[in-house]
Amino acid sequence: MRSAPPAETFPAHTPAAAQIFTTVLSHGPLTRLDAARRAGLSAAAVTKAVRPLLEAGYLVETPDQEARPALGRPASLVRVDGGRALFIGVKVTAGELIGVLTDLRCRIRIARHVPVPDRATEAVLTSLAELARELLAEAEELGAPVLGLGVAISGDVDRAEGVVRYSPFLDWRDVHLAELAALTTGLPVTVDNDVRALTVAEQWFGAGAGLSDFAVVTVGAGIGCGIVVHGRVISGAHGVAGEIGHVTVDPAGPPCHCGNRGCVEAIAGDAAIIRRIRETTGLEVADSAAAAALAHQGDEGAREAYARAGEAIGRGIATVANLLGPERVIISGEGLAAYDLFAEQIREAFTAAAFGSAAQCDVQTRPLPFEEWARGAAATAIQSFITPHDQRQSR
Amino acid sequence: MRSAPPAETFPAHTPAAAQIFTTVLSHGPLTRLDAARRAGLSAAAVTKAVRPLLEAGYLVETPDQEARPALGRPASLVRVDGGRALFIGVKVTAGELIGVLTDLRCRIRIARHVPVPDRATEAVLTSLAELARELLAEAEELGAPVLGLGVAISGDVDRAEGVVRYSPFLDWRDVHLAELAALTTGLPVTVDNDVRALTVAEQWFGAGAGLSDFAVVTVGAGIGCGIVVHGRVISGAHGVAGEIGHVTVDPAGPPCHCGNRGCVEAIAGDAAIIRRIRETTGLEVADSAAAAALAHQGDEGAREAYARAGEAIGRGIATVANLLGPERVIISGEGLAAYDLFAEQIREAFTAAAFGSAAQCDVQTRPLPFEEWARGAAATAIQSFITPHDQRQSR
Ligand SMILES: [Zn+2]
Ligand SMILES: [Zn+2]
Repeated sequence: MRSAPPAETFPAHTPAAAQIFTTVLSHGPLTRLDAARRAGLSAAAVTKAVRPLLEAGYLVETPDQEARPALGRPASLVRVDGGRALFIGVKVTAGELIGVLTDLRCRIRIARHVPVPDRATEAVLTSLAELARELLAEAEELGAPVLGLGVAISGDVDRAEGVVRYSPFLDWRDVHLAELAALTTGLPVTVDNDVRALTVAEQWFGAGAGLSDFAVVTVGAGIGCGIVVHGRVISGAHGVAGEIGHVTVDPAGPPCHCGNRGCVEAIAGDAAIIRRIRETTGLEVADSAAAAALAHQGDEGAREAYARAGEAIGRGIATVANLLGPERVIISGEGLAAYDLFAEQIREAFTAAAFGSAAQCDVQTRPLPFEEWARGAAATAIQSFITPHDQRQSR
Repeated sequence: MRSAPPAETFPAHTPAAAQIFTTVLSHGPLTRLDAARRAGLSAAAVTKAVRPLLEAGYLVETPDQEARPALGRPASLVRVDGGRALFIGVKVTAGELIGVLTDLRCRIRIARHVPVPDRATEAVLTSLAELARELLAEAEELGAPVLGLGVAISGDVDRAEGVVRYSPFLDWRDVHLAELAALTTGLPVTVDNDVRALTVAEQWFGAGAGLSDFAVVTVGAGIGCGIVVHGRVISGAHGVAGEIGHVTVDPAGPPCHCGNRGCVEAIAGDAAIIRRIRETTGLEVADSAAAAALAHQGDEGAREAYARAGEAIGRGIATVANLLGPERVIISGEGLAAYDLFAEQIREAFTAAAFGSAAQCDVQTRPLPFEEWARGAAATAIQSFITPHDQRQSR
């Protein structure tokens, strides 16, 4: 839900125009011919689509110096003018808000963290407004308008309605966050699930660019998954999708906070690994860093806990591959800090459980710090700005 | 791959026209206004799209007798003229070919079975040509042209290329079936995986009509799954998708023919159930019918084998729901004959393992005899006829 009127609207009012812009955004600079080919549109459609975008300064066209022909004028390249507009992205965590100011090409210009004293809606909104104010002041110095705010939050989020249906870690239910944040910041607000937001950033600007079917699996406190099918992030008919963390991989496994047993998260989430190490070694393990340190020192119990975690994650990824056949799976999240402790087990379990050619899926890792999650939030704001009426983006 | 020139081509050359036709096909009869609303198109676009379809006789428009206004002319309804064209659908099984002749609305007019003496490509092609000849003769009596042949076959099938990449039960690899069948039958041929073909029929004419996200799970000799996301059947980047049968649900479970352990199929496929009953009861069980009969007589070992199967299937369906959040899951397949023996366990395991609102997914059963699988094949032929150049349908 866009809850405040935008400072300006995007001058592309057809799906084709939005598509060309997105293509240049993800793959530019491109010749008009390349852009047409990639977007599957005619040259005439591209000409019609880019004109208002060039006029409004969102696209710029410059000669292609590298492809200067011997005779005649050089071919020209179309690219997005990143500095034409700015966006704010915020990732909400239990203790703090991580905010970034990005340009239109989703490049981070400024990053800021502000603490969140408690998890009440009012407290989070106050911190959010403070963060937005800081970043808007920075934007003023950069001399470009801020055209949207994206907020990424873990849990069940209804992007189309701008509502956080349920956030376990904040204990929120049915919070109309887009509307509230628009009131306190004066910006058009997009709210999305954090893993889906990260997936949008990967789709447009990262390791998913150009792929119509891929998944992002995040490991850390929780185990999440963003899934792109037919070129669009899936959200689920009932708000749940990508819950790889609660795929059962061992019915005899440990109980999970969801009430089930042997979920991937109940074996491979940070808390599960720590609990397992405590149980098998009897040692007090303060946090994930301590758990990883113990394993790196060669403690057998700690190493075994990570090995089990890797096996569960690999099996979960194989399940995604067997059901969906993605071209690529990108593993990320703060849990990658300990990746050397379970990379081999992820790979082995994936290979064992992937069916037939599903094993050809390109499984790769990509360390993405929390700022990148905030950048994902900015990407959703850019997406809403470019295709405000495209309901499909959020379905 | 369309391998023979069609007798006639469909007079809808834009995506909008194909979309309107598909909408009327699935939901008709409809007023033009309803068709426009459902397809998300303007009234003008509908007018433009339906004209050539009415002229060519694929659509007909008749007054809506039930909505006759007091004054003025009655509103009219647009519907597909089912008798305008015929299609052949064939499901290939190990022992026989099941063929149906359907009309353009995919209603079965004639069904025929022919035996397949052996699984060599030549033998199957000879039987297929014989079956097509019989059904073409029947079509002649019906006085409508046959405009396509769909073939549904289990295994890894590349529909876009018309190639059976791998069919375990026929032991085929890289058979260019569309091209070969077009040569022997003279018809344009579409080849697709059998579960995906059934899913297309459900999407257009069955329990999936109007849903953009649903899945069909088939139980029987194998456990398969067709998945529709964003309104399109998924095929997987590497040809594998919907392999619910090889989702691991119990890493300590029995070995599977795929080389893994504890796959859904290794617990809930017909052979697995029979093997389990033999192991626990020591009784000789000839086939699935004997296994079900034993369970219906109250044999504890047999009942337990079905209960375990139901649990595995329910867990597999929960995995689909957790990852994709479909609106509905339709359970079908010849295994439904014994559904009363595991329905409760499917339900319980699904509910236990579905995460949050994923449990709201509407899980329903729908008995579909083998003729319906052949009808699915006909549906893919109709789909290819309507949108011959739409590569997206097969991606
Ligand atoms: Zn769980
Ligand atoms: Zn298997």
